Amino acid sequence: MRNLNADNITDAVINEFSGCQDERLKTILNSLVTHLHAFLREVKPSEEEWTQAIDFLTRTGQMCDDKRQEFILLSDTLGVTMLVDALNHQTSDPMVSESTVLGPFYVADPPQVAQGEAIDWGVEGEPLYVEGRVHNELGEPLANVVIDVWQSDSEGFYDVQKELDSASLRARFTTDDQGRYAFWSVTPSPYPIPTDGPVGKMLEITGRHPYRPAHVHFMLMAKGYETLVTQVFAEDDPYLDSDAVFGVKDSLVRDYRLMPPGPAPDGRTLESSYRHLKYDFGLKKAS
Amino acid sequence: MRNLNADNITDAVINEFSGCQDERLKTILNSLVTHLHAFLREVKPSEEEWTQAIDFLTRTGQMCDDKRQEFILLSDTLGVTMLVDALNHQTSDPMVSESTVLGPFYVADPPQVAQGEAIDWGVEGEPLYVEGRVHNELGEPLANVVIDVWQSDSEGFYDVQKELDSASLRARFTTDDQGRYAFWSVTPSPYPIPTDGPVGKMLEITGRHPYRPAHVHFMLMAKGYETLVTQVFAEDDPYLDSDAVFGVKDSLVRDYRLMPPGPAPDGRTLESSYRHLKYDFGLKKAS
Repeated sequence: MRNLNADNITDAVINEFSGCQDERLKTILNSLVTHLHAFLREVKPSEEEWTQAIDFLTRTGQMCDDKRQEFILLSDTLGVTMLVDALNHQTSDPMVSESTVLGPFYVADPPQVAQGEAIDWGVEGEPLYVEGRVHNELGEPLANVVIDVWQSDSEGFYDVQKELDSASLRARFTTDDQGRYAFWSVTPSPYPIPTDGPVGKMLEITGRHPYRPAHVHFMLMAKGYETLVTQVFAEDDPYLDSDAVFGVKDSLVRDYRLMPPGPAPDGRTLESSYRHLKYDFGLKKAS
Repeated sequence: MRNLNADNITDAVINEFSGCQDERLKTILNSLVTHLHAFLREVKPSEEEWTQAIDFLTRTGQMCDDKRQEFILLSDTLGVTMLVDALNHQTSDPMVSESTVLGPFYVADPPQVAQGEAIDWGVEGEPLYVEGRVHNELGEPLANVVIDVWQSDSEGFYDVQKELDSASLRARFTTDDQGRYAFWSVTPSPYPIPTDGPVGKMLEITGRHPYRPAHVHFMLMAKGYETLVTQVFAEDDPYLDSDAVFGVKDSLVRDYRLMPPGPAPDGRTLESSYRHLKYDFGLKKAS
């Protein structure tokens, strides 16, 4: 293993991994080395470009903390996250909801909230009533499904970006015996992914805008079913066809319907106009 | 740009970069996305594996500081650094010295030291006398070449790993009018690359050893010539054929010759045995 050159170094590296006892890991590393080296042979980076790449990756890692995940943003903006999602969840069954990216703002174990309550703690905005039901592949209602919900406020910011003391626009619900869920919130707005890090800079210098269409995130967990990570987008949004993270699917676009003041679906009376979003989720049996 | 799936997402991502004004950057990103997506389609990572990859990259970035560069270690151990080196410096001219990896321990602007002086400040070890000359492609001596030298001590540690207050086994020399350089040091030993980070863990779980054969690093800089980054390895080293970073070339292996006590090449008299390394460097004209 001496005198390695651009033609034989790939085999030499793969050979060094030949003793790996974890067959899956060996397969992944062999494929990674093969494709990574092919990329390098194709673009022939200068040493200065290599240094810039090392620096970019380093700054991306150093931008991460418990509230910010810049490598997920990088994965999202290069289409990696949606590709991994497609490889794991592609479905042609109309009774199963489509998935999309998790995004960098999910926080585990959000506050548990009762059916129909509001989660707009400490934020102002146009009221939004969200409701629907969860069913299986046969359309039968699923009770006790845990639904984590998270979204931006009406200016496009998540609670963790605002460094609030407590959670806001983020909560956990459980479906009732008819599979129903419902909550009050505020209408989210389109927003740029965080642009103050290396990924934002990458979008800027490549002429890409950083915006995502307005959406509410959902994660649905039920015993015996595949966990569903998805988003529901607003159908009039200007960024539906240029989402910075490639996450929009037609089946996930809905009318966030503008409603006049007056009685709301849950019996409350609203003095202002509000929006009404209905979305039913279909879960797939775990294999 | 909706309803992207595993077949069409790569084209969609490349299309988003189509407005990039920097043609070189666009070429690199298009190639990166193509090969990265091909890798993902080949191995079909689970979402858990994707999460592990995000976590690995994050920890690698967070291991970096001004004295530790874990992404360079990753590049080194995957053969990326040597491949980039080969793509930039492959030479068939025997009058031009071969290059190899920079490694993670180079520190810019080391102490300037006079010809023939010792650089073993604060360390013990078997004395090593290093000397040679620097020439151009015609074999003519090159004066005023700046030579940065750095190496491990006899236990395999660099000064920056020991958190010394000042530099040790790290210095800058300038060739004299006959192209000569010389210094006293201590004999380096083989050593493991740092194993306390994500890259060390990767080597461990894949069954690879982390050792590099003993060597002294050199960086030669002269106006009008390509900067040469290289290492000279000890010919009796057990790791010459399994270098963890794939950096050994036959032309860079030399006898660190064991010499008896007595008069040394520079006129000093040594009371202990010592080693003597001679290496002449050939620089290539900058194009």
